[in-house]
Amino acid sequence: MSEGTPRARYLAWFRDLQDRLCTAFEAIDGGARFREDTWEREGGGGGRSRVLEKGSVFEKAGVNVSEVHGTFPDDLAASLPGEGLQFFAAGVSLVVHPRSPMVPTVHMNVRRIERASGGWFGGGADLTPYVLFEEDARHFHRVLRDAVEPYEEGAHARFKAECDRYFHLPHRGEARGIGGVFFDYLSDREEATFELVQRVGNAFFDAYLPIVEARRDEPFDEAHELWQLQRRGRYVEFNLVHDRGTIFGLKTRGRTESILMSLPPRVRWDYDVQPAPGSFGAALVDVLRNPRDWLP
Amino acid sequence: MSEGTPRARYLAWFRDLQDRLCTAFEAIDGGARFREDTWEREGGGGGRSRVLEKGSVFEKAGVNVSEVHGTFPDDLAASLPGEGLQFFAAGVSLVVHPRSPMVPTVHMNVRRIERASGGWFGGGADLTPYVLFEEDARHFHRVLRDAVEPYEEGAHARFKAECDRYFHLPHRGEARGIGGVFFDYLSDREEATFELVQRVGNAFFDAYLPIVEARRDEPFDEAHELWQLQRRGRYVEFNLVHDRGTIFGLKTRGRTESILMSLPPRVRWDYDVQPAPGSFGAALVDVLRNPRDWLP
Repeated sequence: MSEGTPRARYLAWFRDLQDRLCTAFEAIDGGARFREDTWEREGGGGGRSRVLEKGSVFEKAGVNVSEVHGTFPDDLAASLPGEGLQFFAAGVSLVVHPRSPMVPTVHMNVRRIERASGGWFGGGADLTPYVLFEEDARHFHRVLRDAVEPYEEGAHARFKAECDRYFHLPHRGEARGIGGVFFDYLSDREEATFELVQRVGNAFFDAYLPIVEARRDEPFDEAHELWQLQRRGRYVEFNLVHDRGTIFGLKTRGRTESILMSLPPRVRWDYDVQPAPGSFGAALVDVLRNPRDWLP
Repeated sequence: MSEGTPRARYLAWFRDLQDRLCTAFEAIDGGARFREDTWEREGGGGGRSRVLEKGSVFEKAGVNVSEVHGTFPDDLAASLPGEGLQFFAAGVSLVVHPRSPMVPTVHMNVRRIERASGGWFGGGADLTPYVLFEEDARHFHRVLRDAVEPYEEGAHARFKAECDRYFHLPHRGEARGIGGVFFDYLSDREEATFELVQRVGNAFFDAYLPIVEARRDEPFDEAHELWQLQRRGRYVEFNLVHDRGTIFGLKTRGRTESILMSLPPRVRWDYDVQPAPGSFGAALVDVLRNPRDWLP
């Protein structure tokens, strides 16, 4: 790719963000290191996948950069805005599954997709706690609000609502987590939108890492751990049944191990789990069934 | 439903099969009991779900009977053969996840679906070992061959090939297991096809239970257990991304806990697991990548 083109500029920024994220997560974990795999995609492009496993703080953390191009499969072409079978797609995707059930799982993604008729940015960040700490939810939203609001007035309310709509499991009647921001198909104001993308990526550190620091030594017991494994099942259900990025990756024949790095390391499906009234589980489920405005 | 109608007859047989299955699995487990939940579907019909958890032999076993009817969602109507938005669907579905990695997971399903333009039977049984015992694979296929061959000459070859095509994970380039028989959309010769369905359901006991008896006390170590949990991840991937029954259930708003009873109780997703050459894992993966004719 020629240097100086917009695509090259986006990609360079994505790669730098990946570097900064991995450095930050290794520093907090204090022991484990990311392993790197670079891969090429038959049909065009490739990626650089980094995964950290069995850390003291992070049980599994995946940070992918990919830049793929080629020809869309027909069904995917029809399901996306715009025209043209030739495509370019690049982005950074992160999912972190902490060891402690007191530390929430987090996801962040920023991406650029182009086809003949034009391109768009998409992305966002959202938090999936197992035990709800309301001040953490407020902190996460506050930092993201400050990051997106310069894009346009009311951007946080708009992107928070999109996040609640997107990260929703209809067969469970639940949100995946306490939300965050989500945007997709932003095709006008390319420079301003790239700034939005950069601000979200840069704000992610402040949005999430202080929560890790605050909760990593919080005591927990077996009931919290069991609940964490059961709730991770919902994460898998969302990613395999609904997530656009996962489906896009599998349909465009990306590298399976890189796409499914987002799945939690240990998961349980027990039958018909119902948290006891008044329990920490019930408090979480209440918020997942009735998404809240965290910054009223 | 009026007694004496074909629908009532199919349903009565499905219910009796569920009873016989649960009795047989409880007898082998020797301790655990099935819990029963009956449920009604908003829109029409309902089901009787039975699940056994934390048995000494079976870590999780689910046996569902359901009879649902009403109006198809549009996208589902378009994806199925025939015409008409009104539907009736009934069947028995079983998935058993044994505790020991030496005992294979098994799935069996028989079903009747009807819409205005006509109805069809579907179903089958397939085996998902974690450690391959070739004589078990041959036994499973031999019993099923004897059950389906009276339907028409070459039925086993035909339904075995359909099974290999259906239980396939394209993003892994692997079969889910060593196959079995699978058929769908069998819309002519209704009486002969109902006999096929009954023979498959009845043969299932002899196809699977002797394998449980033969392998339940086979010694294993931590490497087998880890591999079992990792391979169970593939089971989840198939069921959530591809399985027609799961998607049908979720789209027709069946009871989520009954539909997802098929998911394994404990699962792992570790990054880029590659079995060592010559290991039991490599022997299994070879057979999953190159489906074999077990009855040459």
